[in-house]
Amino acid sequence: MKLPLKYNSDGLIPAIVQDASSKRVLMMAWMNAHSLQTTLESGLMHYWSRSRQKYWLKGETSGHTQRVLHFHVDCDHDTLLFEVEQTGGACHTGHQSCFFQEVDTQGTPLPVSETRVFNPESTYTTKA
Amino acid sequence: MKLPLKYNSDGLIPAIVQDASSKRVLMMAWMNAHSLQTTLESGLMHYWSRSRQKYWLKGETSGHTQRVLHFHVDCDHDTLLFEVEQTGGACHTGHQSCFFQEVDTQGTPLPVSETRVFNPESTYTTKA
Repeated sequence: MKLPLKYNSDGLIPAIVQDASSKRVLMMAWMNAHSLQTTLESGLMHYWSRSRQKYWLKGETSGHTQRVLHFHVDCDHDTLLFEVEQTGGACHTGHQSCFFQEVDTQGTPLPVSETRVFNPESTYTTKA
Repeated sequence: MKLPLKYNSDGLIPAIVQDASSKRVLMMAWMNAHSLQTTLESGLMHYWSRSRQKYWLKGETSGHTQRVLHFHVDCDHDTLLFEVEQTGGACHTGHQSCFFQEVDTQGTPLPVSETRVFNPESTYTTKA
């Protein structure tokens, strides 16, 4: 990177991912310098999983990869925005976007009307 | 909030803000429980400024407020997405979006072709 990025104290930076075509925000995940470099070199989104403490090629298990089309950095250089071509769905629940749950101004979750774009049970089951 | 949210160890949660009409991602900032509650009650985006350690009504100085139209929570309940009606521009640099800087796959910043939507010098100068 020729721009100096501001990583947090864990060496991570948030990456917002948006569908390049519909502009729907699909997810937010964390990257470190190595996963960002791998993302730019491969053209496929790679993250750092804080819960599993490991690199993570999005779609490694599900096949639902994210191909990078555009990459923007914010004015403070501490947040990244990627426009991607999403294969399948971005969310491990089977939804297209991780932000499928709308909430009203009282803080009450609204009924989810959109259907899943894939079946997470069959997608994430290891086949013998 | 009737959904249990996952705040980080500082009591903060990231909020992605998107223009409800164009779907352009405008900015990402941090909220604590109080700024989220104030946002939902007032219908205007309020954040927690980590650098200034204070509440922050977006547009307090500039008049460039963000009116909430839709609010979504992600599948992990640790990231928020707001679709807003943005008055003026979201970025303190005068740009519509904080993500005005595109970067190529070599990590090189591309020339910024879009013009500012307001003049930050006159907007943020305190008038006597």
